[in-house]
Amino acid sequence: MSKVFNFSAGPAMIPSAVLAQAQTELLNWQNQHTSVMEVSHRGKLFMELATQSVNDLRQLYNIPDNYQILFLQGGARGQFAAIPMNLLKEKGKALYLTSGHWSATAAKEARLFGEIDEINILEQGDELKVSNLDFSDIAPQYDYVHYCPNETISGVEIFDIPNVGNAVLVADMSSNILSREIDISQFGLIYAGAQKNLGPAGITIVIVRDDLIGHARKTTPTIWNYEIQKNADSMINTPPTFAWYLCALVFKHLLSQGGIKAMEKHNQNKAKLLYDYLDQTTFYHNTVAKQNRSLMNVTFTTGSDELNAKFVTQATAAGLHALKGHKVLGGMRASIYNAMPIEGVEALIAFMQQFAAENS
Amino acid sequence: MSKVFNFSAGPAMIPSAVLAQAQTELLNWQNQHTSVMEVSHRGKLFMELATQSVNDLRQLYNIPDNYQILFLQGGARGQFAAIPMNLLKEKGKALYLTSGHWSATAAKEARLFGEIDEINILEQGDELKVSNLDFSDIAPQYDYVHYCPNETISGVEIFDIPNVGNAVLVADMSSNILSREIDISQFGLIYAGAQKNLGPAGITIVIVRDDLIGHARKTTPTIWNYEIQKNADSMINTPPTFAWYLCALVFKHLLSQGGIKAMEKHNQNKAKLLYDYLDQTTFYHNTVAKQNRSLMNVTFTTGSDELNAKFVTQATAAGLHALKGHKVLGGMRASIYNAMPIEGVEALIAFMQQFAAENS
Repeated sequence: MSKVFNFSAGPAMIPSAVLAQAQTELLNWQNQHTSVMEVSHRGKLFMELATQSVNDLRQLYNIPDNYQILFLQGGARGQFAAIPMNLLKEKGKALYLTSGHWSATAAKEARLFGEIDEINILEQGDELKVSNLDFSDIAPQYDYVHYCPNETISGVEIFDIPNVGNAVLVADMSSNILSREIDISQFGLIYAGAQKNLGPAGITIVIVRDDLIGHARKTTPTIWNYEIQKNADSMINTPPTFAWYLCALVFKHLLSQGGIKAMEKHNQNKAKLLYDYLDQTTFYHNTVAKQNRSLMNVTFTTGSDELNAKFVTQATAAGLHALKGHKVLGGMRASIYNAMPIEGVEALIAFMQQFAAENS
Repeated sequence: MSKVFNFSAGPAMIPSAVLAQAQTELLNWQNQHTSVMEVSHRGKLFMELATQSVNDLRQLYNIPDNYQILFLQGGARGQFAAIPMNLLKEKGKALYLTSGHWSATAAKEARLFGEIDEINILEQGDELKVSNLDFSDIAPQYDYVHYCPNETISGVEIFDIPNVGNAVLVADMSSNILSREIDISQFGLIYAGAQKNLGPAGITIVIVRDDLIGHARKTTPTIWNYEIQKNADSMINTPPTFAWYLCALVFKHLLSQGGIKAMEKHNQNKAKLLYDYLDQTTFYHNTVAKQNRSLMNVTFTTGSDELNAKFVTQATAAGLHALKGHKVLGGMRASIYNAMPIEGVEALIAFMQQFAAENS
């Protein structure tokens, strides 16, 4: 088989240079003659790795000093619960802006902990299009406003940051963190499961402004209490050290590649190639409005379940893996996170052209 | 440097055969030309791994069919919260038997969620000795009784199973799971963070009896709701796939080594060697009563902080790593979990003898 390209939506590709380094030093990390996953998280060498990873992420994403960076367990779905536990006052309310499956799931979980208002920000119509994002009039009544800037299932990305005035904006960036430059200071809290753009599944990054720390309700589990974890360097319990190590390697790798500015250009180039092709073919369709087309997850369909299934089977055989769309939506989905090289997108388009020619 | 032996209390040694296999197939798992950490948890190949791992653990530990096996995130400390959320009725009470740091920490976390009674089962005296474990008279008033059969910090292990009559017994087996045969049917729930005897940090195993599932309080985070996770094959969110994969390899490895019966013999042999030496030297001291000496964590001290520090430094230089005791207790601690070969214990004793001779 020739080269394989993996379009998995998550767990997703990890930069090949990072995996190669991990393989080389898997049995002998830092000349310790043990694996990085066999050493104490509180030992000098791992603590250095942890500190460096925080510093590297801060530099990479231009995170101001008044934000803490936490490495937690439980995935974004764990944070669906941890966020209201930490930010929602006992008699408070939060606003959830929903634009697809994940933002709606976050809202549902938050309802376990208090009063949640929900606004569907997708306009009614033939296209998946996000409406006006000015909530500055209503935002002040809420403890926070939550949204998901990239919906992986439908491939809808929200590029404008919602205007919530002085209210606290919370964003689930699981599928687009570190994919393009953002102004962190517009957010109160950003969180992301690692398994799309950061590293392997099992570690979750929370970037949270200082003033939002220290208000957790009494029944917040210790491992998700932001204040306790901040004071314990995210080590109130044993962290997922190997996953953390891989994230640290990914940060170093991104810095060496030119940082987020370079990554944004890389991602725009890849997405443009694919959407340009989709725009000039009638064989495949993408139903997302142009201004909301995700740079990370590109959905498309032939319009026929039978042809879609054939496409996925033949693509897999050709070394283009994991192109099947989410079961909620069907069709195909190409996830082209940071680690996907442009050659992968080129190979996909070449296959799409050939498949279209053979099946038109 | 000659061979290194790693006595870390956790994250701890992983069987070298398992790490070697992981290294070999890190970039190409199951001929997919991708890493196991880059594939969908819901894909056919990973689902097969997950199912097989459950079956292997069931066989290995002789787990009856009326128990579910869950693979969760958050560590044992996450379960400190999840257990009362799932098992403690709104107006109920639980009993925590405390024998050291971890059982006391579990009780403290449980108090966030309801009324907890606590009984210190360590007798007062010069030795760390566990008292009579018959609680059958008082147990019926509690929703469950919790204990920790192996306290890693002090090296105290409880070999007899507390008698709680028909009440629900819950055990934190993070540091002695799979180390010796046990009768699972005496427990309502067993849980363990992976990073001592199972695999890398970041995955937590919960073995729970069917009748205890389905009673979670409303505010239980979805990822820790046993009923939801049971119905989702522990995949209500993306699981830590690489950690799960390593656990699966460890289970296969243990089966190939003769299972838990063989492991128990191996662990008894290692511990006997070390305790026999401690009993016949006056240079080092262990303060645990003979019937409560841990097979997993062997604590000892020279009685002098200065000599202890010298010991740890010189041992590290000699390839005997991570022997420093927990900061709460000081002294030294040799963690000799399943993955520690007997040669490691022999090398440690040889070093201890030499160090004693040079410093007496």
